[in-house]
Amino acid sequence: MRNLTLLTDLYQLTMGQGYFREGKHEQIAAFDVFFRPNKLITYSVAAGMEQVSEYLENLHFEEEDIEYLRSLGIFQEDFLNYLKNLRFTGDVVSVREGELVFPYEPILTVKAPMIEAQLVETAILTLVNHQTLIASKAAKICAAAGGGVMEFGLRRAQGPDAGIYGARAAIIGGCVGTSNVYAGKLFSVPVSGTMAHSWVMNFPSELEAFRAYARSFPEGCLLLVDTYDTLKSGVPNAITVFRELRAAGHEPKGIRLDSGDLAYLSKEARKMLDDAGFEKAIICASGDLDEYSVRSLKSQGAKIDTWGIGTKLITSADLPALGGVYKLAAVFEDGVEIPKIKLSNTTEKITNPGMKDVYRIYDARGMAVADLITREGEKIDPLKPLTIFHPLDVWKRKTIKNFSVRNLREPLVVQGKSVLKKRSLFEIHESFAAESAHFWEEYKRQDMPHIYKVDLSDALHALKREMVNLYGKGE
Amino acid sequence: MRNLTLLTDLYQLTMGQGYFREGKHEQIAAFDVFFRPNKLITYSVAAGMEQVSEYLENLHFEEEDIEYLRSLGIFQEDFLNYLKNLRFTGDVVSVREGELVFPYEPILTVKAPMIEAQLVETAILTLVNHQTLIASKAAKICAAAGGGVMEFGLRRAQGPDAGIYGARAAIIGGCVGTSNVYAGKLFSVPVSGTMAHSWVMNFPSELEAFRAYARSFPEGCLLLVDTYDTLKSGVPNAITVFRELRAAGHEPKGIRLDSGDLAYLSKEARKMLDDAGFEKAIICASGDLDEYSVRSLKSQGAKIDTWGIGTKLITSADLPALGGVYKLAAVFEDGVEIPKIKLSNTTEKITNPGMKDVYRIYDARGMAVADLITREGEKIDPLKPLTIFHPLDVWKRKTIKNFSVRNLREPLVVQGKSVLKKRSLFEIHESFAAESAHFWEEYKRQDMPHIYKVDLSDALHALKREMVNLYGKGE
Repeated sequence: MRNLTLLTDLYQLTMGQGYFREGKHEQIAAFDVFFRPNKLITYSVAAGMEQVSEYLENLHFEEEDIEYLRSLGIFQEDFLNYLKNLRFTGDVVSVREGELVFPYEPILTVKAPMIEAQLVETAILTLVNHQTLIASKAAKICAAAGGGVMEFGLRRAQGPDAGIYGARAAIIGGCVGTSNVYAGKLFSVPVSGTMAHSWVMNFPSELEAFRAYARSFPEGCLLLVDTYDTLKSGVPNAITVFRELRAAGHEPKGIRLDSGDLAYLSKEARKMLDDAGFEKAIICASGDLDEYSVRSLKSQGAKIDTWGIGTKLITSADLPALGGVYKLAAVFEDGVEIPKIKLSNTTEKITNPGMKDVYRIYDARGMAVADLITREGEKIDPLKPLTIFHPLDVWKRKTIKNFSVRNLREPLVVQGKSVLKKRSLFEIHESFAAESAHFWEEYKRQDMPHIYKVDLSDALHALKREMVNLYGKGE
Repeated sequence: MRNLTLLTDLYQLTMGQGYFREGKHEQIAAFDVFFRPNKLITYSVAAGMEQVSEYLENLHFEEEDIEYLRSLGIFQEDFLNYLKNLRFTGDVVSVREGELVFPYEPILTVKAPMIEAQLVETAILTLVNHQTLIASKAAKICAAAGGGVMEFGLRRAQGPDAGIYGARAAIIGGCVGTSNVYAGKLFSVPVSGTMAHSWVMNFPSELEAFRAYARSFPEGCLLLVDTYDTLKSGVPNAITVFRELRAAGHEPKGIRLDSGDLAYLSKEARKMLDDAGFEKAIICASGDLDEYSVRSLKSQGAKIDTWGIGTKLITSADLPALGGVYKLAAVFEDGVEIPKIKLSNTTEKITNPGMKDVYRIYDARGMAVADLITREGEKIDPLKPLTIFHPLDVWKRKTIKNFSVRNLREPLVVQGKSVLKKRSLFEIHESFAAESAHFWEEYKRQDMPHIYKVDLSDALHALKREMVNLYGKGE
């Protein structure tokens, strides 16, 4: 993998030298990654943690990186020498990829010497923000489609990595394949695609173009039928070739529609294919689709079996940044935690101080009731009634009995070494799908969803209140 | 550089095998890259061509790529053998990076054996779409700010490349620096940044935090003043430290505001700095800014000298994909051009057929009047009056005399080898700025801009009309 050690904001290094000068660089500090509510997101699907673990394990400056930093003329030699031997030695706990996560939850916490913890902020945010964003968008699109979604967006991605890791995240969110060959190889996921309009234009007729394609790919033949006239030319020509294939002992796969009125065309094409005896031939649709157009097409009774989703998925077009942040939660003196809080005049922007755990509470039917952020090491006893309350509107309370509880986070990196149990992307997706089944649809729907509760434990709430009062900014 | 040969859509390879089977894979074909109008873009700034030239020169499948393709079970051995030796052998002509470009113009044309030309479509689009998008967004933001814009968006970029090459494109569009150290090293551009709120929170008081920073960076000291209370605490503490610095012989750089009412705070902070004798200390503003908020702040008289622009620049938040396409323009038989056209029921979607040139027409004052797309090799004689007309509304005509003309494109790759004359990013930006001065503000403004004309020559228009009539789809 590429060495991304320099993939950081300059201020991480200027602060690094400052801490080094002040003798504070090896003080242990803890930072939380979390994001704030956004009206377009009902839940997010965590992703990018595997890349975070690889990045941290590989962290080191090359000699030429040190040379470059020296050339900036702002760093001193003793600090540059220190950087030469810098490795990531800290611990990271994180939710697993594919976990459903909600605003304010510390989905990942870095605990490391201050200089390391600051240096890695930027790249961790880049990796987690991007993949979580695309996995979440994919989940919304796949929920609308009910399955059969392929990621087709590479050419519109914001650079190669956006295409490659966007495809990865899309699979975690529920896509069944990608057109991106690089991603297919890197992550062992199915790749799909057959022909473009240029193929059809490069033969004297559409029929000849289809026949030529069928000669090369008699198995799984899928033909693009909208180059000239979908219903008058494309589908009839496809049926002609499908009959020839069947006569030769091959069963065709189906057709793709890439333009026009997909609801009408798919219904008409379905009839034509069925009437010709190709009931199993699928219809794939593509062309600037997203969860809104997919839902609209399905509500119109479109006969579409699989979906190729490009631009709007790979860029998360209506929300192109997740906005996850990385905030100081605590520092340690002689091993003793000193919680830290970031105050703000905006109540929602006040951070949750100290080391924390995140639990999910399930009712007796196994359905998720709320998430609970606690101080680190708090035990929740499922045999005692649990009162949860809204972290801002504290009069909103609810007591639950007969529940079960799960700690959402586990170690990702221990003393600089990755302890990630690697899973295939489909295993990660399966874990997401399994967990998703524990959430009522009301929490997941796009229109007017119920807001899933993320509450604070009594102990965490008390600490936060105490610190806000101490620093005198509770308004 | 990474080998991006597999960074392609699978259908490029299935079509490749199809052409190979049909003996058409080495037929020379030409494809144009262009984009269609978008209401948010008045002009675009071409970028990404250097990366295209490197990608093409480096194109080759590794043995493990071939193994991977074999494992898919759809490619035949003779085709895989052919791929082993495949290199890009074609020609590319392109506008230079930093060129102002407009819808429908072929900003880049690939002429190569069909199999190569198809294979490289996806990566070329990824590289050019992304960087042109960000360079154009940066140009809009820098136009609003009037200079002094720094790119601060890495943590919100759609993956590492989006941050690295987004920073590159931002410099082309007019940014004067980036926070991204990796990009700073790779492209030799200024990096900037000093401290985060966490620095201030890590000292017993804001004043101690500022003093500690000043100890490490007595030169160019820039302090973040909004951690607690900007006007009651941040600016006064900064002034205290600035006085100490000055007493020790160092001139401070200034302050940064990252939250709150930037118009009000900047005006108040300016007064306080001026009253204390720090008239030259700059005020930098950051915090979810874009061209709209920058323009609003300036119209309110905000006293902001430099701008740190993050999320909305690095993701081009209001238009996260440019949507550039790659369309077949011609094939060649025995060296003779056979123009190709893509028809559509939507008039604007009918492509311009054949090999083409793109000229820019300037009036006697040197101001750009229109761009003209011609057939390849057409000569425009500046001594004769030139009649230009709207390509769709052909009754809109205009005759110009006394003009000069410039061919916008030049060779980028010749027979597979890059012929790019490398320039620094600031040189590229300077060429953009110089050309931009030849455009009236009316074409460049965001609100209700005049639409700059991109016309077709008589000869190209005649060819297009003839082909549309021939294929019978002119409606």
